[in-house]
Amino acid sequence: MSLASFSALYRSRIDAELERQLATLPLTAPRLKQAMSHGLLLGGKRVRPFLVYAVGEMLGVPTSLLDGPAAAVECIHAYSLIHDDLPAMDDDDLRRGQPTVHKAFDEATAILAGDALQTLAFTILADHPMGPELMANRVRMLSELARASGYAGMCGGQALDMEGERKQLGLSQLEAIHRHKTGALIRCAVTLGALCHADMDEATLSALRDYADAIGLAFQVQDDILDIVGDTATLGKRQGSDLAHEKSTYPALIGLEGARELARELHQRALTALRGLPYNTATLEAFADYIIERTH
Amino acid sequence: MSLASFSALYRSRIDAELERQLATLPLTAPRLKQAMSHGLLLGGKRVRPFLVYAVGEMLGVPTSLLDGPAAAVECIHAYSLIHDDLPAMDDDDLRRGQPTVHKAFDEATAILAGDALQTLAFTILADHPMGPELMANRVRMLSELARASGYAGMCGGQALDMEGERKQLGLSQLEAIHRHKTGALIRCAVTLGALCHADMDEATLSALRDYADAIGLAFQVQDDILDIVGDTATLGKRQGSDLAHEKSTYPALIGLEGARELARELHQRALTALRGLPYNTATLEAFADYIIERTH
Repeated sequence: MSLASFSALYRSRIDAELERQLATLPLTAPRLKQAMSHGLLLGGKRVRPFLVYAVGEMLGVPTSLLDGPAAAVECIHAYSLIHDDLPAMDDDDLRRGQPTVHKAFDEATAILAGDALQTLAFTILADHPMGPELMANRVRMLSELARASGYAGMCGGQALDMEGERKQLGLSQLEAIHRHKTGALIRCAVTLGALCHADMDEATLSALRDYADAIGLAFQVQDDILDIVGDTATLGKRQGSDLAHEKSTYPALIGLEGARELARELHQRALTALRGLPYNTATLEAFADYIIERTH
Repeated sequence: MSLASFSALYRSRIDAELERQLATLPLTAPRLKQAMSHGLLLGGKRVRPFLVYAVGEMLGVPTSLLDGPAAAVECIHAYSLIHDDLPAMDDDDLRRGQPTVHKAFDEATAILAGDALQTLAFTILADHPMGPELMANRVRMLSELARASGYAGMCGGQALDMEGERKQLGLSQLEAIHRHKTGALIRCAVTLGALCHADMDEATLSALRDYADAIGLAFQVQDDILDIVGDTATLGKRQGSDLAHEKSTYPALIGLEGARELARELHQRALTALRGLPYNTATLEAFADYIIERTH
């Protein structure tokens, strides 16, 4: 299956799963529920669920088992976007061409919707049907998801990013921000997909995590490149917005050509990580290609 | 042991455990870490950890096993206070006589500190040392904590509370707010303490949860009463602040004497729930007494 059709297939699958999860919530607080739905179903590339599905399928895990971890990791991502968009944070009015949650509703509701989506991620992961052979792996998945989302991962990365604004950062500081802010959750998506296999060995897990680290960082480098060379209509956000926010970027630090070279290196590193694995890694390879070839 | 000494003992124990948990976080984002610490170590009655310890000890669970669930539930409580105090929510400058997190730091840091404390709760509960005989119970504890904290519990209750401000609520609506906003987490604390016992039977669990529901609601009724008859210095918050926020309260709906009668009824209900249990329920009984006798 081509990457495009695999991706489209799993995008509709995860959207259906997220809608199903929202539908299980009682109607006690309708406005909050609507706000959670708005933040969760705005669309997006669904990169993290894609990685859960792609890794799990490669390992022969039933797709229905992967729905839970895929939905959980996307709930974390959606919550982080809602909070990042708040006036006190990035103060963004639009996300994917739609009003952000605090614009469509109000600030208090947006804070709560983010909070409740974070919690929903753990509910989904703790409750999704899994056999007893996955009990220990499930506890580990919950631990991995929490670690990737919290102080040692995404939240800490957002704090680093805020502290770094309007400062001249070095390459290692910029990498530390990305590794925490986005890399940790991408690595977690790959880890959750792998841990859905009851007998996951640490060597395979480690190779998959190396792959995830490389594509996670490549994704950010490509984002920085697109902020300069992309156009606003294709990106869904204002071209040049990093410059406007005085954010440190790879092109600013090592030049546009340097950034392109780094993206290519990371792409190679991702492919190398997959090389020794005794599985059909075609989808993961194609995804690594897509990361550095994408135009939005 | 008297309630006062039991409570004092476990207050210092949980404070030490929370400090230990914070100390395990790397220093990557020092300002965020300080803000989390400020919100978590401001003090407070530590009612939820107390309940984890009291129930667990009653069932013969080793205290060290209870440290994790107790810390987890307090992290959730602390995160909710940080977010509730935000300008977009209750806009409070003081909490327990100290500046709230967004006052001591800034709004963005307070949002992130709350977010990261929520995640830390799940990290602690997923990682705290527990034997393999508790594996299934641990997954259930994680599920219970998520459900009690999220849309179906605390977060949903905060949304209901916001929607209810400046509206005339009925008794059942007021109870629904409290049952979600504070009751769910108190019930969860009792549940986590019980689930630390590997062979917890559903009848005992159910009785303990009835007890929790009764004292949880009694606690709120007493809070409403104290808002009228307490004095600002003892309460640590402005006396009459519910009136100022135009919040619906029990005394407003059923009169001060009606509220006192309800608190006594709930107290009786709590004691009745404990009656059939084949354990020494003295501490839990004393705690129920304290709930309606407290003056702050």
